[in-house]
Amino acid sequence: RSAPKTDGRHDSFELEPERHPALHVISKRPFNAETPSDVLDSFITPNELFFVRNHLAVPLINAESYVLEVVVEGVEKTTLLTLEDLRTKFPQHTLAASIQCGGNRRSEMIATRWVQGIAWSIGAISNATWTGPLLRDVLKYAGYDDSNENLQHVQFEGLDCDAVCCYGASIPIEKAASRSGDVILALEMNGHTLPRDHGYPVRVVVPGTVGSRSVKWLGRVVVSHQESQSFWQQRDYKLFSPSANYPTVDFATAPSMQEMPVQSAIYEPADGSVLPPSIEVLTVKGYAWSGGGRHIARVDVSLDGGKFWHTAEIKPSPEPFKQQQGRAWAWALWEAKVPVPPEMRNQVEVVCKAVDSNYSSQPESIDPIWNLRGLNNNAWHR
Amino acid sequence: RSAPKTDGRHDSFELEPERHPALHVISKRPFNAETPSDVLDSFITPNELFFVRNHLAVPLINAESYVLEVVVEGVEKTTLLTLEDLRTKFPQHTLAASIQCGGNRRSEMIATRWVQGIAWSIGAISNATWTGPLLRDVLKYAGYDDSNENLQHVQFEGLDCDAVCCYGASIPIEKAASRSGDVILALEMNGHTLPRDHGYPVRVVVPGTVGSRSVKWLGRVVVSHQESQSFWQQRDYKLFSPSANYPTVDFATAPSMQEMPVQSAIYEPADGSVLPPSIEVLTVKGYAWSGGGRHIARVDVSLDGGKFWHTAEIKPSPEPFKQQQGRAWAWALWEAKVPVPPEMRNQVEVVCKAVDSNYSSQPESIDPIWNLRGLNNNAWHR
Ligand SMILES: [Mo]
Ligand SMILES: [Mo]
Repeated sequence: RSAPKTDGRHDSFELEPERHPALHVISKRPFNAETPSDVLDSFITPNELFFVRNHLAVPLINAESYVLEVVVEGVEKTTLLTLEDLRTKFPQHTLAASIQCGGNRRSEMIATRWVQGIAWSIGAISNATWTGPLLRDVLKYAGYDDSNENLQHVQFEGLDCDAVCCYGASIPIEKAASRSGDVILALEMNGHTLPRDHGYPVRVVVPGTVGSRSVKWLGRVVVSHQESQSFWQQRDYKLFSPSANYPTVDFATAPSMQEMPVQSAIYEPADGSVLPPSIEVLTVKGYAWSGGGRHIARVDVSLDGGKFWHTAEIKPSPEPFKQQQGRAWAWALWEAKVPVPPEMRNQVEVVCKAVDSNYSSQPESIDPIWNLRGLNNNAWHR
Repeated sequence: RSAPKTDGRHDSFELEPERHPALHVISKRPFNAETPSDVLDSFITPNELFFVRNHLAVPLINAESYVLEVVVEGVEKTTLLTLEDLRTKFPQHTLAASIQCGGNRRSEMIATRWVQGIAWSIGAISNATWTGPLLRDVLKYAGYDDSNENLQHVQFEGLDCDAVCCYGASIPIEKAASRSGDVILALEMNGHTLPRDHGYPVRVVVPGTVGSRSVKWLGRVVVSHQESQSFWQQRDYKLFSPSANYPTVDFATAPSMQEMPVQSAIYEPADGSVLPPSIEVLTVKGYAWSGGGRHIARVDVSLDGGKFWHTAEIKPSPEPFKQQQGRAWAWALWEAKVPVPPEMRNQVEVVCKAVDSNYSSQPESIDPIWNLRGLNNNAWHR
């Protein structure tokens, strides 16, 4: 294949965008930063405070010359689409979706037993609205036809590259081509042109799926018989037994992460807070989310480390953040006002756990889900 | 609505079918019996040993006069289909699917803390092939059109009734009408006419979904704006916090169970077995399954109660039991040959846990998932 169609400088960190000072920076090159806890309590994360997970340098892309290539294996012609084409040739959709990094809450996993990876706290997840054409409409336009059963994956190639290769990932065709999959080629985020850190000019947003498949600076889409062969699809974003480690693990037989399991976290009270000695009722707040469009069925909160549980109130989600049946892509926000018995006032251990619409539950502790890449930490949040 | 179209005797237990003596009978009226452990180790559960979960007496249905009613709200004409119609008017499909009762493994939950309900061990799940027309083809024939967005649920009414009402349940329209949902109106089970205990002459099989939605002795299908209003949809098959109980729980706000979470169980060695004192390698075998068509990504086995984990071999599934991407309806069978260190020979605690293709995990213990109906016990199996 030919070189990505940008005006270059893909492996240079000299042209990074400016960032909001309130972001919690975890690594600078590539830039990774999380949403501050006090900003999580909102159905919309402002664009400038949306967590940033970059695998490589941010490419500088010229909107005028930008072209998206769409290739369907078995279809001779490659479809080339300008930004104008993406805006005008297809119906535009807006949907609300959280994006969560596969490593969200890794810092707790690291604390249990060391793993390599960005030490995210609870802010490697954010929520926004996304506007653009549906991927399925673009695939049809490019000649994809669901009667060809060889075509099982849709690969995405980013325009973020180092000297050797560019970022890439893929998702199953069912997700990409189904009406209920809601995969969107986002041109706007919260009603504004995509910021450079979030994929300007085009990011595919794969709702309900690990963030690493929502490829930013999208340069090429390939409908294929096989998964993306990129490092990030084949040798990362896979999980193994807590007793397995390099070099004996077999990446080939582990499935690549797609839909994520149920998650929740507490952002109030902040970790380590000291409660007023006379407190009678403690207000606990947090988010909860599950992959695959599953909505949150219930959030339980405990002040005694998990013996007695109080059921939290899930806040009513305004449109378009509503928890739609099977298409609940946006997080739920919840709040519990929990009575604090006098004898517990100086020994509260606040814990939350959520169940999703499958009544799938979060695991109690990290040890049994520990994995060598530190992915999918969805243990109870303490 | 009119009375169900059978030749009656719905509330009589005098005309129950004969049953195989090897079934583990748990209750006689209604009849509930589980598959013996030694029979679980097979991709096909023989029809006569498939677990039986009856909510009411088994109706005696005359194939000649049997008619399935299909009603689509907003479509004036009710569609009536004979068995011959179901066999000849629609393409016939065969698929392999496990059916699991919502109460599978309830006995372990009861042992932790009492709950009402049938005390199932690990055999309230079985696996078979199912043959018949797809529900979606029948719905289209009856005038269902997916552009009518009011139609959100498909209700099933059984011909098993007591003096007051008949069994009923519903599933979301997305599952019922999508190509990948694979919902089938089964006329055959493992290549034979359905046995009376399994819904003769027609059972809807909703793969990946709690068994209670796979309504037996199907008499009527209604595409509706609302869920089934039956007791079993509204006041059962819902889960609550472990700290919640009658009479304060609010059934109205809890979602009805549909897709089930990841599950696994050990059938060899049998619970309480004594190992030979000189054993060097222990063979551990079991099944694993997840709802929603998710396949099993990994099964871990521990001999020390969960400190060190060995990854089991998942047996290759023959056609049609293959673990197809997003449509893995049949269980996986697994085996681990685990070395037993000399110092552990008289203190082995065998445990298994599985993860599915979402990397959703099983909870470690029962207490935090305990619920007043004793449903969805998918804690690690010990
Ligand atoms: Mo990520
Ligand atoms: Mo059940």
